[in-house]
Amino acid sequence: MDALNLPDPKNKARVVVIGGGFAGLNFVNKLDTDNYQVVLLDRHNYHTFAPLLYQVATAGLEAPDICGPLRKTFRSKQDFHFRMLVVHGIDPAAGHVSTEAGTIRYDHLVLATGTRANFFGNDSIEHHAFPLKTVPDARRLRNHIFQTLERADLTDDPAERERLMTFIIVGGGPSGVEVAGALSELRKHVLSKDYPDTPIDRLRFVLVEGGDQLLSAFSDKSSDDARRNLEDMGIELHFGQLITGYDGRTATFKDGSTIASGTVIWGAGVTGEVVVGLRDDSVRRGQYVVDDRLRVAGYENVYALGDVAYLTSDAWPKGHPGVAQVAIQMGKRLAENLNRAAAGKQPEAFEYFDKGNLAIIGRNRAVADLPKNIHFNGIPAWFVWAFVHIFYLIGFRNRVFTFLSWTGNYITYNRAVRLVLEPSLEEELRSEKVS
Amino acid sequence: MDALNLPDPKNKARVVVIGGGFAGLNFVNKLDTDNYQVVLLDRHNYHTFAPLLYQVATAGLEAPDICGPLRKTFRSKQDFHFRMLVVHGIDPAAGHVSTEAGTIRYDHLVLATGTRANFFGNDSIEHHAFPLKTVPDARRLRNHIFQTLERADLTDDPAERERLMTFIIVGGGPSGVEVAGALSELRKHVLSKDYPDTPIDRLRFVLVEGGDQLLSAFSDKSSDDARRNLEDMGIELHFGQLITGYDGRTATFKDGSTIASGTVIWGAGVTGEVVVGLRDDSVRRGQYVVDDRLRVAGYENVYALGDVAYLTSDAWPKGHPGVAQVAIQMGKRLAENLNRAAAGKQPEAFEYFDKGNLAIIGRNRAVADLPKNIHFNGIPAWFVWAFVHIFYLIGFRNRVFTFLSWTGNYITYNRAVRLVLEPSLEEELRSEKVS
Repeated sequence: MDALNLPDPKNKARVVVIGGGFAGLNFVNKLDTDNYQVVLLDRHNYHTFAPLLYQVATAGLEAPDICGPLRKTFRSKQDFHFRMLVVHGIDPAAGHVSTEAGTIRYDHLVLATGTRANFFGNDSIEHHAFPLKTVPDARRLRNHIFQTLERADLTDDPAERERLMTFIIVGGGPSGVEVAGALSELRKHVLSKDYPDTPIDRLRFVLVEGGDQLLSAFSDKSSDDARRNLEDMGIELHFGQLITGYDGRTATFKDGSTIASGTVIWGAGVTGEVVVGLRDDSVRRGQYVVDDRLRVAGYENVYALGDVAYLTSDAWPKGHPGVAQVAIQMGKRLAENLNRAAAGKQPEAFEYFDKGNLAIIGRNRAVADLPKNIHFNGIPAWFVWAFVHIFYLIGFRNRVFTFLSWTGNYITYNRAVRLVLEPSLEEELRSEKVS
Repeated sequence: MDALNLPDPKNKARVVVIGGGFAGLNFVNKLDTDNYQVVLLDRHNYHTFAPLLYQVATAGLEAPDICGPLRKTFRSKQDFHFRMLVVHGIDPAAGHVSTEAGTIRYDHLVLATGTRANFFGNDSIEHHAFPLKTVPDARRLRNHIFQTLERADLTDDPAERERLMTFIIVGGGPSGVEVAGALSELRKHVLSKDYPDTPIDRLRFVLVEGGDQLLSAFSDKSSDDARRNLEDMGIELHFGQLITGYDGRTATFKDGSTIASGTVIWGAGVTGEVVVGLRDDSVRRGQYVVDDRLRVAGYENVYALGDVAYLTSDAWPKGHPGVAQVAIQMGKRLAENLNRAAAGKQPEAFEYFDKGNLAIIGRNRAVADLPKNIHFNGIPAWFVWAFVHIFYLIGFRNRVFTFLSWTGNYITYNRAVRLVLEPSLEEELRSEKVS
C-alpha cells in the first residue's frame, strides 16, 4: 500500500496523470492498463466539456449537461485509480508528486493541467471581472447575470438601472463572441418576456477587442461573418480598445473613456496552469516546452499535453492552437507511444490533424473554417460543431442522448436553468459546515 | 409609480404575496387579476418542488428538475409583478411591507412563507448538521456527501475512513426515511462501482428517531412497512434516541453514547418562517393563527397559508398537517374567496380534502395511506405519488415531459449529477465579485 490509499502497482509501471480535461481523459482512455497502472489526479471529480461553458453561463444548459463524472467514465477500466485533490508540486529527482493528501511515486508523469484565466497582473479586473474557465465560473456568472437583472427590476433609480443593464465582454476570440451571441439570444427569447416592468430593449452588451477584428485565428471571411452577425444581433463592438481597470461599478479604457457597468466578463487571456518543481528552462511563458514525442524538455519520463504544452512544428511555428482537438490528439498519441514502448516498439512523433475551426454565434448563426478553404455558417455549422464534438467526446455514457438533450435545450430554451441557485456568500458563511 | 419599480394599481386593490411555495403559487395562479394587482415577493426567483429535495441531495435529480422559474410560470398573467428580495417586516397599521429594497403598500397581504429547519436552540447541531429545506441546502449536502467520500478514498488512516463513511440521519419522518432510503440506493447502484479502492460495503447509514416508530403520521401498517424496508436496505435504526450535540466530528446522544461521523443530516424539526410586525397574539409557536377564511387573528386583510398557518378544525384539532396538499388547497380557497368578494359574493370556509400520505423509500419501495383505509406500497406507490404531485403542480410548462424526466432519471441514475460542483468556501471568498 502506497500513500493516498493506492494499491501497489506490483510489476507494472505507474503513470500519474494530473488533469482530467480533454488531454488527460483521452490519454487514460487509450492507455493499456495491462502494462501500466494509471492514477488520475484532479481537483474536480468531473470532466468539463469546456467549449459549452458559455451555454451554462447564459442559462442555455445546466452544468451536468456538460460534465462527465470521471469515476463513472472509467468505471470498467482495470487498475485505474482516481483521486480528487489539489497537487502541490513535482519532485522529478525523487520521482514524486506532492499533494494536499500526501506524496506519491510515479514512473511516468503526464501533465495535462490546462489553462487558467490570465488578467495580466491587473488586480482590479481580476477581483471584479468574471472569467469563464470552469463550471463554478460559469455558474457564478449565470447567478450574477440573473441577480443583476433582478436588481435592475427593483430599483427606482434610472441611472443605477442603466448601469446594471450594461454588460461588458472583454475579448473578441471564440469565447467572447459566443458569450455575446448567447446573451443577445437570451435577451430576445427569454428576458423580454420575463421582465415586463423593465425596459429589456435597453439592455446593452458591449464587446471590447484590442485588435481590429473578431476571431483572429479564423479566416477573414469568418471574422467578417462574425462581426456582421453580432452587429445584427445588437452587440456594440469596440475595436482597438483595451480595458485598464474595473472597480465593480465603472470600467476604464486605455483611451480614458469609461462605461458604468455591473458586469465585466473576461474572455481575453489564458495562461498555462504550470505545476511547480520542474527545471526553469522547461517552461516558456506558462507552458511546458515539449518535443514531438511530447516529453518535457530535460526529462525522459515527464510529458505535457494540450493547452499546457508548447510544441512547435513546421505548420505551427508559434505552437499549436489551444483547442480541444490538439489536446485529444496529443492524449491519444502519448498513450499509443507508451503502449508501443511496452510492446518493445518505437514511439511515433505527434502530428496534428487540423479539423478546422467553428464558433457559435447564435441559434442560426455559426461560422466554420474547414481545411481546404471551405467556410460555412448558420444552422448546419451548429449541428456539425455539436456532432464533431460529441463524436470525439468520451465520458458520456450515451452520446446520442447527450446530443439530443443539447440540441433540444439549445433550440427550445425549455429548461428551468435561469435560476439563481447558489447560496449567497453570506448564506454560505452562515451555514459553513466543518467536519 | 410606487417603490420597487411597481406600476400604480389604479382602481384595483393590490395583493402582496410573500413566498412562492405551493401556497403562494396556487394562490397567484387562481387569483383573477382583472380585479386585483398581484405582487409576489420571494428571496429566490424559483418555486421549489420541496418533496423531491432529498433526490437532489442524493444525486438522483439535478436542481432544475425540481425548480420552476417564477417569472416564466406567470409570464402570461396580466398585472402580475414578481420581485426577488428579502422582506424585513410588516406594518399592518400603515398597510406596508418593508423590504431590503424599499417599502410597498398593500390592500391585502398573503403570508405564505413556509417553514425553516428548527434546531431547538442547539447551536452545535445548527452549525455542523445539514438541513434539507431549500435547494441550496440540498446541493450543499450533495457536495458534502461526495467530498466526504473522496476524502475517505484518499486517507490512509482506517479510523478516519470509518468516521467519514458514517452518516447520521436525524428524524424518522418522511424526510429522514426518504433520505435514508435514497442513500442506501446510491450505495448499492453507484458508489459500489465508483469507488473500487474503498470498502463501500462498510458505509454506515444510521437513522436516529426520538419516538418508537418511523412515519408517525402514517398508519401503523405503513410505519411497519417503512421500518422493515429500511432494515432490509441496511439502514441502522435507533429508536428512542435523541442527538444532543455534534461538533463536526462526533455526535453525542441523550444516553451518553457517541458516534464518530463526518455527516449529520437534520430532518427532525421545522418551525414557521414568521415575518415580524403582527400582534403577538396572532402567532402561536411559530405559526399564524388563522380562522376558516384563512385570515390571521386580529386582521381583516392579512392572511396566512400553508405551513405557516395554524388552523384547527373538527378533523384536525391540533392543526392541519404540514404537507403540500394543504398549502395548495389553502392557496386556491383564498384566491377564490377574493375573486368572490370582487363579484359581491360571500367567502366560503376552507375545508381540507385529505388525499392521503405517501413516502418513497426506494425505487421499488414506497408506502402509501389513502383515505378509506387503503394502503399500498412498492412501484405502484411511486408512480401514483409522482403522478398526483405532477397533476397538482403548476409552473412547469410541460407536465408530461417533467414526469418522464423524473421517472427516467429515477430509474436509470443516468444523470451526471454526482458532481462536486460548488466552489469551496475558500474559492468563493477568493473570487467574490462586488458590484
